[in-house]
Amino acid sequence: MPDTKSFHMSPEEFRRQGHAVVDWIADYMSRVESFPVLSRVQPGEVRSQLPASAPQKGEAFEQVIADVERVILPGITHWQSPNFFAYFPANASGPAILGDLLSSGLGVQGMLWSTSPACTELETHVLDWLVPALGLPEKFLSSSTGGGVIQDTASSASLCALLAARERATHFVSNRRGCDGKLVAYCSTQTHSSVEKAMKISGMGSDNLRLIDVDQSFAMRPELLARQIAADKKSSLIPCFVCATIGTTSSCAIDPVREIARICRDRDLWLHVDSAMSGTAALCPEFRFVHDGVEFADSYTFNPHKWMFTNFDCNCFYVADRKHLIQTLSVLPEYLRNQATESGAVIDYRDWHIQLGRRFRSLKLWFVIRHYGIEGLQHHIREHVRLAQQFVAWVRADSRFELAAPAKLNLVCFRLRSGDQANQKLMDRLNASGDLYLTHTKLDGKLILRFCIGQTNTEARHVERAWQRIQQETALLENS
Amino acid sequence: MPDTKSFHMSPEEFRRQGHAVVDWIADYMSRVESFPVLSRVQPGEVRSQLPASAPQKGEAFEQVIADVERVILPGITHWQSPNFFAYFPANASGPAILGDLLSSGLGVQGMLWSTSPACTELETHVLDWLVPALGLPEKFLSSSTGGGVIQDTASSASLCALLAARERATHFVSNRRGCDGKLVAYCSTQTHSSVEKAMKISGMGSDNLRLIDVDQSFAMRPELLARQIAADKKSSLIPCFVCATIGTTSSCAIDPVREIARICRDRDLWLHVDSAMSGTAALCPEFRFVHDGVEFADSYTFNPHKWMFTNFDCNCFYVADRKHLIQTLSVLPEYLRNQATESGAVIDYRDWHIQLGRRFRSLKLWFVIRHYGIEGLQHHIREHVRLAQQFVAWVRADSRFELAAPAKLNLVCFRLRSGDQANQKLMDRLNASGDLYLTHTKLDGKLILRFCIGQTNTEARHVERAWQRIQQETALLENS
Repeated sequence: MPDTKSFHMSPEEFRRQGHAVVDWIADYMSRVESFPVLSRVQPGEVRSQLPASAPQKGEAFEQVIADVERVILPGITHWQSPNFFAYFPANASGPAILGDLLSSGLGVQGMLWSTSPACTELETHVLDWLVPALGLPEKFLSSSTGGGVIQDTASSASLCALLAARERATHFVSNRRGCDGKLVAYCSTQTHSSVEKAMKISGMGSDNLRLIDVDQSFAMRPELLARQIAADKKSSLIPCFVCATIGTTSSCAIDPVREIARICRDRDLWLHVDSAMSGTAALCPEFRFVHDGVEFADSYTFNPHKWMFTNFDCNCFYVADRKHLIQTLSVLPEYLRNQATESGAVIDYRDWHIQLGRRFRSLKLWFVIRHYGIEGLQHHIREHVRLAQQFVAWVRADSRFELAAPAKLNLVCFRLRSGDQANQKLMDRLNASGDLYLTHTKLDGKLILRFCIGQTNTEARHVERAWQRIQQETALLENS
Repeated sequence: MPDTKSFHMSPEEFRRQGHAVVDWIADYMSRVESFPVLSRVQPGEVRSQLPASAPQKGEAFEQVIADVERVILPGITHWQSPNFFAYFPANASGPAILGDLLSSGLGVQGMLWSTSPACTELETHVLDWLVPALGLPEKFLSSSTGGGVIQDTASSASLCALLAARERATHFVSNRRGCDGKLVAYCSTQTHSSVEKAMKISGMGSDNLRLIDVDQSFAMRPELLARQIAADKKSSLIPCFVCATIGTTSSCAIDPVREIARICRDRDLWLHVDSAMSGTAALCPEFRFVHDGVEFADSYTFNPHKWMFTNFDCNCFYVADRKHLIQTLSVLPEYLRNQATESGAVIDYRDWHIQLGRRFRSLKLWFVIRHYGIEGLQHHIREHVRLAQQFVAWVRADSRFELAAPAKLNLVCFRLRSGDQANQKLMDRLNASGDLYLTHTKLDGKLILRFCIGQTNTEARHVERAWQRIQQETALLENS
C-alpha cells in the first residue's frame, strides 16, 4: 500500500495499458500496408493539432493512445511497411520489440559492469556469438585482444574508430594537447557522410579527409589511395586512418578491403571497415565474400538495426585491440570507481563509446538471434537478395530502364534512360501514390533510383507490385 | 497469407508474447523490492550460463523468457528498486515504458523531417512545452532563434555544445582545418567527467580544459574563472567555452550561473549549463531558483531520464541560437536531399547531434507529461526533496555523522566522522546486505557517502528503513 498520494501508474494499471499498447502494435503490424508509405502531412500539420502548453493535470492513458491514432499516425512514414524500399531498411521484428520492452522495464544503466553485470556480460557474449556467425576474425573476440560493443549508430562507431586511430598515431598525445591539423584520413568518394562528420567532430578537420576516387563499380581504387598517402607523407602530413566500405550507401559498392588492408598495414594506418547494412549478408556462407580482407581490419562495424530484424538502435562495433579504444575514451572520476573495475576482471563499456550512460540493448539482439536461430536469419536474408535479383532481371528486360551499378545483394540502383527529370518525376509520382517508397542518389552525376529490399515482411508480392507500379507510372509519364 | 516460408513472429504471436512480457514487467514492478538491490554475481557468472555459440535453430519464446528469469535477473542491479539511492536515479515509469514500446513498434527513423514528420514535430513541440514549465528563457523555444532536441545523454549534449562553441570561436574554420591546440575551455573541479571526455573527442585536448577551483559549497569561484581566462588570453590562447553545472554529480553543488554568465558575455565565451539531474526540480516554483542565470546561457541540458520518470535514453538539449549548432554538425550528401529540407520549412534533427539515425524518443516524454500532468510531476519531485530533507535532519541529529555538503534538493552527502575506512566499510556492508544501494565520492579528499532520492517508487518507508539500516550497521561497525 502506498503511504502517500501517488500519480504513478500502478503495476496493475501498467498491465492493463501495456496489453492495450501491445494490441495496438499487433494491429498496426496487420494494417501497416493500408497506409501510404510516405507520410502526406505538410510541415507544421502535426504540431498544429497539439495543445500549446503541457497539461497541468494528468490525462487518461486512453486519451493519449487515441491521439497517437489521430495526430501521430498520419505523420508517420512507415518504415515497417513491406512496401518501404527507401534508404536502407530499419527492419524490426516481434522478438526485437519485446527485447527492447524488457530493457525498458528493467531500466538498468550499463555504464559499468558493476551497475548491472548482466547488461555487460550478455552484450559481450552475444557480440562474441556473431564473430563466427559472420565469418569475422577471431581477434574481434573478447577472449582475444579485441572485442565488440553495441553502439547507437554506425556514425558513432566510425567516430570512435577515427578517435582511436588518431590517438594511436599520436601516441595518445592529441587526447591531451589537442589536434594540430597534420593527421590525414582517407575514404572513397562514396563513403558515408558520417566519416566527414567525424573528421569535423574529432578536430582533425574535413579538409584533411581525402576522398579517393572509385572505379566503374563505385569501389575505392587502392592504387590511388597508395598514391595519395605517399603525397601526403611527402608534405609532412601524418596519414592515420582509412575507412573502407562494404556496401556503400548510394550503390552498395564493395571496396577492395584486402588490397586496402595491405596498404594500411605497410604504412601503419588504422583500417576501419563500415558494413552498416551489408554485414548482415555474411550470415549466409554464399554472401560471406563481402567480408574478404576484414581479417586485417583494426575495427569493423555493422548494424543489426538495418537488416537483421533488430529495432533501432543496435550497431555492433568490433576492435582488434581494445586497449587503443579504451585508452582513447577512458576517464575515471572518483564517483565511478568500484572494486570490479579496479580488479581489471570486467569490461566497463562506458570506455568503449562517446556516452557514459547506456541501456540494455543486447537483450533485443539476444531475443532476435534466439527466436530466428541462424537458420531463420539466413532464410530471410537469402529471400531478400533473391527478390532483389529478380527485380534486377526485370529492369534488364525493360529497354526503357538501365541498371546504374552492380547489384550483388539487396540494393538495386536503376534509372530510366530518358534522363534525370524523368527519373525525378517517376520517383515523386510513385512516392506520392503511397503505394511504395523509394529514394534517390547520384552516381556519375546522374540521378539514380535506389530500390532496397530489407523490410522484415517484404515478400515477392510486394516487389512484384512495386515493379508493376513503376511500369505503370513510367507509361503514364511517357504519355503525358 | 504469407506466400513463402517464414520465421517471423506473426502479429498474433506478437500479441500473445507481448502480453506475457508486459505481465513479466508488471510482476517485476511488484516484486522488485524482494531482490538485493546490488547484484551479487561474480565476474563471468552470467556468461558461464550462456551457450558458447548462437543457436542454429530458433527457440521458443517461452524458453527465452525463462532464461531472463534464470540467467539475467540475478545479474541485474535494480535501478528501479525504491531502495536504490546510488549515483543519480534513472527513474522509469509505466507511461514512459509504454511510450518507448510504441516507438519500437512504429520503428521509424527520425533523421530527417521527411522520414517521419511526426517524429520531428512531436519532439520540437514537447521540448517547447518544457521551456515555460521549467522557467527556461524564451530564446530556447523553436519559435525563437533556438530550440530543443532529444539527445541520448548529457555527455553527448555537452560534446555538441563544446563543438558549437569551438566552431563559433573559430568562425567554422576548425571544422575544416582541424584544431590547433589554442582553444581553451573551463569548468570546475566538480564538473562531470564528460566535459573532459568531450575535450579529448573534440580534438581540443584535455590539457586545454581548466578546472576552476570551488568554494566551500563546491560551487565554481567566478573570480578565479575570470582570472584564468585573463591569464590564458595573455598567453595568446583562445578561451571559448565554459560549462557551469546546476547540481554537480558528487554533491549537487550549484555553480553561480549568473556571475559566470556575465564573465562569458563580456568575453564572448559560450556558456553551457549542465543540469542533468537537478533541472527537473525547476518544475516546482519553489525550486526554480536552480535556473537563476540560465537566461544568459548559450546552451542548456537536463535529463528526463534521471529524475523525470522517463526511461533512458532521454536527454533534453537546448540552444539559444540553433544556427551555430546546425552549421557545426550539418553534412548533406545527395542521398539525404529532399524537398522538405530544401524548403527550409522544417527541422532535420540529424544536424543537431553526433548520430544520423534516431528513434522516436519524444513519444515517451509526451506520454509521461500527459499521464502525470505538471501537477503530478511536481508532487513527486517535492516528495523526493522532502524525504531527502528529512534524511538530512536525521544525519544532523546523530553525532556519529556529519553532512559533507549543502543538501538543497534530493542528494545528501554525509559521512561517519570516524574516517574514510569506516565509511568504506559502512557502504560495503550496506550494499552487500542487498537492502539498499548507495555510492561514494570524495570531497576535500575525504570519502563521502552519497544518498540520492529519486527512484520513482521511493516512499517515506524506504528512506526510513535505509536510515535504520545505516544506523544498525554503524553500531555493528563500532562494536567490531
